[in-house]
Order: sequence, then C-alpha cells, then structure tokens
Amino acid sequence: MTQTATGRAINFSAGPATLPEPVLEQARADIWEIAGSGVGICEHSHRGPVFDKVIHESIEDCREVGSIPEDYEILFLQGGASLQFAMLAMNFLKEGDIADYLDTGVWTNKAIKAAKKIGNVHVAYDGSLTKHDHCPSDDEIQTSKDAAYLHYCSNNTIYGTRFEHVPTTDSPVICDMSSDIFSRAIDWSKHAMVYAGAQKNLGPSGTVLVVIHNSLLERCDGSLPGMLDYKAIASKGSMLNTPPTFGIYLMGQVFKWILNEGGLSAIEERNEKKAAIIYDALAECSDFYTPVARKDCRSRMNISFRCQSPELDALFLEKAAVHRMSGLKGHRSVGGLRASVYNAFPVEGCQLFSEFLMDFAKENS
Amino acid sequence: MTQTATGRAINFSAGPATLPEPVLEQARADIWEIAGSGVGICEHSHRGPVFDKVIHESIEDCREVGSIPEDYEILFLQGGASLQFAMLAMNFLKEGDIADYLDTGVWTNKAIKAAKKIGNVHVAYDGSLTKHDHCPSDDEIQTSKDAAYLHYCSNNTIYGTRFEHVPTTDSPVICDMSSDIFSRAIDWSKHAMVYAGAQKNLGPSGTVLVVIHNSLLERCDGSLPGMLDYKAIASKGSMLNTPPTFGIYLMGQVFKWILNEGGLSAIEERNEKKAAIIYDALAECSDFYTPVARKDCRSRMNISFRCQSPELDALFLEKAAVHRMSGLKGHRSVGGLRASVYNAFPVEGCQLFSEFLMDFAKENS
Repeated sequence: MTQTATGRAINFSAGPATLPEPVLEQARADIWEIAGSGVGICEHSHRGPVFDKVIHESIEDCREVGSIPEDYEILFLQGGASLQFAMLAMNFLKEGDIADYLDTGVWTNKAIKAAKKIGNVHVAYDGSLTKHDHCPSDDEIQTSKDAAYLHYCSNNTIYGTRFEHVPTTDSPVICDMSSDIFSRAIDWSKHAMVYAGAQKNLGPSGTVLVVIHNSLLERCDGSLPGMLDYKAIASKGSMLNTPPTFGIYLMGQVFKWILNEGGLSAIEERNEKKAAIIYDALAECSDFYTPVARKDCRSRMNISFRCQSPELDALFLEKAAVHRMSGLKGHRSVGGLRASVYNAFPVEGCQLFSEFLMDFAKENS
Repeated sequence: MTQTATGRAINFSAGPATLPEPVLEQARADIWEIAGSGVGICEHSHRGPVFDKVIHESIEDCREVGSIPEDYEILFLQGGASLQFAMLAMNFLKEGDIADYLDTGVWTNKAIKAAKKIGNVHVAYDGSLTKHDHCPSDDEIQTSKDAAYLHYCSNNTIYGTRFEHVPTTDSPVICDMSSDIFSRAIDWSKHAMVYAGAQKNLGPSGTVLVVIHNSLLERCDGSLPGMLDYKAIASKGSMLNTPPTFGIYLMGQVFKWILNEGGLSAIEERNEKKAAIIYDALAECSDFYTPVARKDCRSRMNISFRCQSPELDALFLEKAAVHRMSGLKGHRSVGGLRASVYNAFPVEGCQLFSEFLMDFAKENS
C-alpha cells in the first residue's frame, strides 16, 4: 500500500481537492481556538478583531501571491463559480448588449446557458466540433464588435486542456480560472475580471475568489439586490452580510503557504515538474495510454487519459485503489481516467503515480 | 478569570456563534482524515461515497431534528439569509403580484429592500413605530388579499424579540428563522418555506438551510439561472454545483449533537432554562438593567438590555472581558448590551453570567 509520509492517501480528486498538510494542521488547531482568543475560527463574529485580521491578511496575501494591481478589488463571495455564471451576466450583460463566450467544455457551456437566461450571447468559438481536445488560437475565435465582454475558461478540468495565451479581443475579458488560479502567473493587463471557486487550488468549496477591475465595477448600476451586485459587495469589503468566515480563513492559510513555498514562480516551476513526471510516463507507455488533450495545450492541473479499453480503465481504478490512490475516475462526459495535481498535490505523489502507470502498463500489455 | 471546563472562553457572539465542543473535537479529526479514507472532509469529491454519506445523513438527521414532513424538501444553499432575501422574491414574487412583509427590525428591512428590487411589496406591519420592542399580534397586521406570500422573521437578534405565534394569513408563509431555528418546535402546517443562515444555531457561516414545501417549489417557472432557482437546485439534491461540503458536514454534526442531547424538546427545555437564568438576574437588578424587548415576546436566543448609561455599558464590557466573556456588545442600531445564548451555548455559561450581572450591578449601583 502506498501512502504519503504522514500516512494520508494520495488524493487525485478534481475538486474539492487535496489541501496542503501544514494548512490542515493549522486549521485543526484554530477550529478549537484561534489566536489565544479562547474561541474557534468558526465561532468568531465577522465584525470582531480576530476575524478582521484574518480577512485583511487574506486579501493582502492574495494580492501578493497573484501580483494583483491596486486598481483591482479582491472579493470573497459564495455560491461557487456557477453562481458567477449568472451574476456576471446580470451585472454586465444589459438589454441590447451582446457578450462573447468561448465554449471549451462542459463548464463554459453551463456559463453560456446561465448567461442566455439574462441576455444575448454570441458563441465566438465552439469547441464541441473537435470534442474539446484543445483551446482555440486567436484565428479560431470570431469576436463580436463592441461585445459587453468576452468570457473564457483558462483551464478545462474535464478534458485536461488549457489556454497558453489570453484570447485577443477589444472587449473586457472575464476569465473562469477555477481550476488553475495561482498555478501560474496571470497577465492582469489582459483581464477585467477573474473568478475561481476555491475548491481546487485555493481552499474549501463554498467560497469564490473574484478579482475585478475598478472600471468594470463602475458598470454595476445598482438595479440588482445587493447580494448580486459586485459594486455593493465591494463597497462593504465582501461583508455586505456574514461572509463564509472559515472559507476565507482557509484560503488565507493557503495563500500564506504559497508565499512560504517561494511564491507563484516557485509553485509554477513545481507544477511544470509534477505534470512532466506524469506526461513523461504516459509518453513512455504511449502504446498503452492515450491522453485526451492535444499536446500543445495540455493542462498542468488535470491530466486526462485512457487505457485501450473501458475494461482496462476499470481495472486501473481498482489497482490504484489498492495503492490508496483515489479520485482517478474521468468525468462521465469523457470517461477514462484523470489525475488532478493542483498546487497542493505533492511531487512525491506524482513520482509514485508515474511508477504505478508504468507497472500497470507492463503488467497489462 | 472565568472559563469553561475545557479552558475556552465564554462566547456570547450573536453569529457566527459558539458551536458544541464535541462537534469541534470531531471536526478537528475529520479535517485531517474522515472515515478512515486517508483524506480530510474538505478534500473529498462531492460526488464520492464519503461525502455522499455525509450529505444524506445531514438531510435525514435534519428531518428528524425538525420533525420535517416528507412533502418538504431540505436544501443546503449558499450566500447567507441575505441572498435568500433576493432569491425568494425572484422565484415567488412575479409581475403583478404583491407580497406581504412584516417589518420587525433591521434584517426584515433588508429583506424588504431586496424584494422591492424585484416586485411589489406591502409592509403589512411596521415595527419601527414602537422601536421594534415587540412582535405584532394578528390584529396589528394588515395582510393583502391574494398575496404571493407573507414573509416574517421569527426571532429578531438585534432587539431580542420573538414571535410567540405564527402570523395568521391566507397566503403561503415564508419565515427567516436564522436566529432561532431548531431552538423550539416548528409548526410546519403554518409554513410554506423556512430558511436560516447556519452561523447561529446550525454551524459555520456560508451555508443556508432552506426547507420548502413541494407546492411552493412548483411555482418556480424555470426562467431564472439554475443557481437562483429552488426547483433546479432541489432536482439535483442541493448539488447543482459543488456544494459547501465542510458547512454541510458541520451542520450534520450539529444535528447529530442535537439528537444525542435528546432532540428538540430537550434543547427547547434547556433554552427556556438558560434564558430564565439571565432574565431572572436582570429582573433582580431591575433598577440597574433595562431589557430592550417587551416582556411578552422576549427572545430565548438573544437577550438585549442596557445599563443606566452608555458609560456603564462600556464598563460592563470591560469587566466582562476580564472574565473572558466576549461578544456582549449590543448591535450599533440599538446600542447597549446583548447576550446571545443559542443552542450550543452552555447552561454553565448562563450561570456564570448571572453571577457577573448581579456582582456588576452591586458594585456600580
């Protein structure tokens, strides 16, 4: 049986996903009592000095980790990226407007579906024609003139694809970075808004990070209920109502962990190394395994592949479970197998998985 | 210095609030590894067997705790009660409709403000005329004919008032029970929908419990984005997207704790006893302390009162802090002092507070 040095399993879940063990250790202490207050992190008033310090440090550390310029607001919301699908359209897609959407998979499709309930949507790229095996180059994208915004997803968990570049357009760009935020540097000059559900690279499910440029905030016209209005939420520093205090705390701990590990450049370098270990093993057994994504836009976070038959995929999962490797089943829409190796997933786990990949191919060829 | 048997402080916070210590102990273990899986509760896929068991038990235990009939759906949402203010109006207050609202304080006022962004609101009771010192009897309420619904709040945290009866109306009744859910029995025959932010009586902030009758669900017409549509969420068992897994887990643990303590009737009895200990102490020093709420509708959860001067209130907070009693400052809208003693707040804490109340009055009279 394979396990980490601390005795935990090797968890390849696509999200909610592995968290850094030092963060979990800290959380175990702080749930009982934080900062010598005699009160646990979940039990503190969001208006009190202990949580005030927590949220301010989370925002500051987030800005430092992501090198986020001062003219972007950092917000902590709720409802997952899926509520953002609706909320961003409610705020920025007004009557008579049109918004461009790049459809690169199941999740962008859901974003499109939600936006269509609000206003006019133009699908500027339709990846279903190539079974979402890649992310488009600029010449595959047909943008609209004067679009309210262009929406894309930087990393597609299901197919294991990622954009290597930010799509070119004259409109403000809004990006769903749920599955690769803070795994590599972000070019802020090309984004008006970035959002991410926390449960892959940032923390627990139930909290969403939204980074939004002031110019976009100014487009919120006050017609929506406050909880659906970015400007109203920003004006209260994410505390228009009681925020998800534990989620904000845990994200803050993850930001501190990233900084402690050397910041985003160190994390990016490690992610390149981790993904290479697995892609190299797949390449070495290329007669046995087939990756889902086209080589030029392979995700470093989600590595989707399959064996030569569904029966072998099933056997793979069975044998992996014996080695305490979990969360490897591919999404039902593509089948096969998937290894998600977000920031907190250890290099050691990739090495053990590489050995397993090669052993399994040898035994079953 | 005063403290609980386990060395923690005595936390009177109005929310987020004290959680049961056995629940915190369990959470400390499960954050690292739950159910022998080698993976922590925050790190499990919401589609996997471990979380599947968690959410199903949470729903079942919730139904048992609240004696919730089978024709009501139990949903776990996000965004706090404040998002519900908007969402319930978006779903049930359609063009040409009118909804009745009972205004019994700051929070119902926010609910009214959110609903007015959506449709026509009739304030069927305006408590501001009596500074919200009580909850109305039926003859103080002017309901509309054929209202889409009547909205009220069963317990008003700020003023420390509660309804002793469910308001009478011919319309479906929707109740914000954020601050007293599962502190006393609920008459389901008189409610079409009940909702509650978790952070007072149920668990951590960031999760909302919604209990909704099937007949009300049928009024959702599919025009809203899925994340704002109760019926769409109910059709996926609260998993239209990744739910707040830790919040649902912790609420589930609190439900188990309630059952273990003897269920709702035992909890209600204890709450009566706890509140009486404090109200009795206030009554004994009635020359010194003045309760905010009218006697016939005093909350058992939030006990708002004041000393004879703001200076004495400030001194009270200072002296209480020495005894490790925290969270006692009244809401800025009424000032004074407030002791919140939700389900998880121990009897022992009420006794110690009673002694402190009497000592402070004696020393400063």
